[in-house]
Amino acid sequence: MSQMPPTSGSTQSSDSIAPEAASEADQAGAVSRRSLLGLAGAGVAALGIGAAGGFAAGRSTAPATSPVADVYPFTGPHQAGITTPAQDRLHFATFDLITDSREAVVALLKAWTVAAERMTQGLPAGEFEPGAGPYDAPPDDTGEAEGLNASGLTITFGFGPSLFTDSDGADRYGLAARRPALLADLPHFPADALEDARCGGDLAIQACADDPQVAVHAIRNLARIAFGTASVRWSQLGYGRTSSTSTAQTTPRNLFGFKDGTANIKSEETDAVTSQVWVSADDSAADDAAGDRATDSSWLTGGSYLVARRIRMTIETWDRSSLREQETVVGRTKHTGAPLSGGTELTEPNFAKAGRGDLPLIDPTSHVALAHPTNNNGARMLRRGYNYTDGSDGLGRLDAGLFFIAFVRNPATQYIPMQNTLARDDLMSEYLRHTGSGLWAVPPGIPAGAPLGGADGAYVGQGLFEA
Amino acid sequence: MSQMPPTSGSTQSSDSIAPEAASEADQAGAVSRRSLLGLAGAGVAALGIGAAGGFAAGRSTAPATSPVADVYPFTGPHQAGITTPAQDRLHFATFDLITDSREAVVALLKAWTVAAERMTQGLPAGEFEPGAGPYDAPPDDTGEAEGLNASGLTITFGFGPSLFTDSDGADRYGLAARRPALLADLPHFPADALEDARCGGDLAIQACADDPQVAVHAIRNLARIAFGTASVRWSQLGYGRTSSTSTAQTTPRNLFGFKDGTANIKSEETDAVTSQVWVSADDSAADDAAGDRATDSSWLTGGSYLVARRIRMTIETWDRSSLREQETVVGRTKHTGAPLSGGTELTEPNFAKAGRGDLPLIDPTSHVALAHPTNNNGARMLRRGYNYTDGSDGLGRLDAGLFFIAFVRNPATQYIPMQNTLARDDLMSEYLRHTGSGLWAVPPGIPAGAPLGGADGAYVGQGLFEA
Repeated sequence: MSQMPPTSGSTQSSDSIAPEAASEADQAGAVSRRSLLGLAGAGVAALGIGAAGGFAAGRSTAPATSPVADVYPFTGPHQAGITTPAQDRLHFATFDLITDSREAVVALLKAWTVAAERMTQGLPAGEFEPGAGPYDAPPDDTGEAEGLNASGLTITFGFGPSLFTDSDGADRYGLAARRPALLADLPHFPADALEDARCGGDLAIQACADDPQVAVHAIRNLARIAFGTASVRWSQLGYGRTSSTSTAQTTPRNLFGFKDGTANIKSEETDAVTSQVWVSADDSAADDAAGDRATDSSWLTGGSYLVARRIRMTIETWDRSSLREQETVVGRTKHTGAPLSGGTELTEPNFAKAGRGDLPLIDPTSHVALAHPTNNNGARMLRRGYNYTDGSDGLGRLDAGLFFIAFVRNPATQYIPMQNTLARDDLMSEYLRHTGSGLWAVPPGIPAGAPLGGADGAYVGQGLFEA
Repeated sequence: MSQMPPTSGSTQSSDSIAPEAASEADQAGAVSRRSLLGLAGAGVAALGIGAAGGFAAGRSTAPATSPVADVYPFTGPHQAGITTPAQDRLHFATFDLITDSREAVVALLKAWTVAAERMTQGLPAGEFEPGAGPYDAPPDDTGEAEGLNASGLTITFGFGPSLFTDSDGADRYGLAARRPALLADLPHFPADALEDARCGGDLAIQACADDPQVAVHAIRNLARIAFGTASVRWSQLGYGRTSSTSTAQTTPRNLFGFKDGTANIKSEETDAVTSQVWVSADDSAADDAAGDRATDSSWLTGGSYLVARRIRMTIETWDRSSLREQETVVGRTKHTGAPLSGGTELTEPNFAKAGRGDLPLIDPTSHVALAHPTNNNGARMLRRGYNYTDGSDGLGRLDAGLFFIAFVRNPATQYIPMQNTLARDDLMSEYLRHTGSGLWAVPPGIPAGAPLGGADGAYVGQGLFEA
């Protein structure tokens, strides 16, 4: 950032305006993008990290909007955006299909696959060359990410229960027999205050990046491509990841001001990822055997389930509660994140340890106690939530909180019982209000190297549509 | 970012979880913040940029959320956040006073001044030492910015017309005679679709930073401090600055995908800043002479006016219009930002230059033509707007657009006539909807070195309350 010396409101340089300087800086940005485009044509995009590193290194005049030039592969055994180190910004959107045609749905998924792969590699959504037209057609990329790099963009797709059967139980696209029994609307939890306009959706897309403009650009272009086939049902922006998904990341703070996700599953915990995140072939077989229908959900093997909850925090009330109350509710200290039973942030909580009056140091109804795996049959989740602030509510309060996202192998054992317990007993629930909700099955990834889209190309969810 | 090697969703390291690594990284973040606290106590915060540079340099394990460690002085002849190089994120909020007491308003401004200065220097809003209690009181900082650096935070305060007189014309706090004649509600413009819940407010605060969590933290803590005296009327988050305010910055793109703010006033243009941004002593005298009331608005000398407009873009319609239509509407090429009369981005548009059929290459009703200073009596503005995306609207469309912010010396000559013209004739207005609005007088800065707050301390707007 050395090229952008801070100046105060009062300290103006006496230099006259230097259009050449701005022009050069601008050219650098534009040329970088074009260079990337050129390189991609030569197949260098496949180099991934290396290419991105060089790209970033060459951007000495890049704007501060693009601190990270990471490029993640779009293809692989699992979709990106799950065990990928959590990026800092989120745009999550769900879509309702507005077509009766199964072919149209497949065509949409193919088009999305091609565009998503391109955008994650830092390319425009479409193949038109920027600046070269055609002039009589709408651009095939909306343009606001031109000059920005890939910014670690990942795009993760999920399928909701309503993709399979509509609210009347009708088989919309001939997929009803392929719906996993576990893929059902979440039950009503105590104190749920859900708003229909923030719930569900036939399809869900999670776009994460280190630049919000890149994440928004991705969702916007996918919505543009869906025109006539699917329309946005609801969408949510988030910032400030509230979980780490890699041991290389520090634990961030949520809007209660506490470190969040200390015990989250990290991608380096390969055993936990296998046992808690990915749906196995046995899971699929068991799911098919368990239902009272003849089903085949084998397409989900290697995938996962995405649970989303929009959890508003009543932060004005929280901010007027004492530090003691806040720490009691959470079960950890606010400053270091250590459990109230002692130690440091990463010390395991000791729920048996008693303090004054033989009372446990960690309240049994604190958030950390009720959410801990030892109190949930060992269940853990890979959480990937974000803080959100959506203006204010007309009553002088900020509409702010946590957009909770978790990836689990089995929502019926890993999420639903825990949320029932938390909603009923958690001291924290006094300060929370669940206003949005959804569950989606996240298909496995597309094998690396497969041609994408087109007549014979691979696409996300192909296994669901092509048995 | 070299400490965070990207991994794909499918490529997991075989390392076991390494709590020590995470712990170290975390400690580094925490220690840095504490170190800053220590340094600040020794008066090093006053070093500003230098101190911040060193602070950043020492954070090799800092999270990716904090790419920029710039610290801007809070004090100076003008408030920061105007000519300061535009940061990447915005949280803007307006407040309604809910007290009848002038003393309570002054006390609020003093408390805000002290907290704002601290937060812009990377310190918590209050003086409690993190981790040390007191435990029976609410924390005097909400905590979510702990571990993050100052991130270039600036906090800029403005006073709305309703601070002086209420809707019935009553003199609320004995300030009516000090209201500048120019500080009046903006007129109704053609096609305005304003929502009352996004308009006006007695007080406005613009918090800009390179980390959204830092900007949100600032507004939230100022709202917390205001409890009982003022409450949030509305607030708006923004990302991706849509203007450059320094020649060292590249021109960003708005959500139409075009470069925006090419002709914006840059802080390096000291003559333009003086002639177009700051209210002079002569301006104040002329304002007082022009009104039909006996007024004294000299307190605003050295300040400015802030115009805010929430401008929704109908991006779905835009995205389906041809590249030719888009470029005609804007008057510039989408790829390079050059005017359609030729050249590069920074070439002056030639409105007389004709093309085929002797028609001007730049449509006279294009946005660039109607907004250009030559068509507005030489008027320019220092724009400092941001893109926004606030979810979707329930009709399958993203609620996205531009949160326009401009600082002008005289809204009656620099903003109102231009907006009347644009709203009536601009080809772009077909794709725009103004949903929020406000005008605030931005008092000058607080002299550097003055003690802040307390019984005799300086505070923002002191000149207004203490003649």
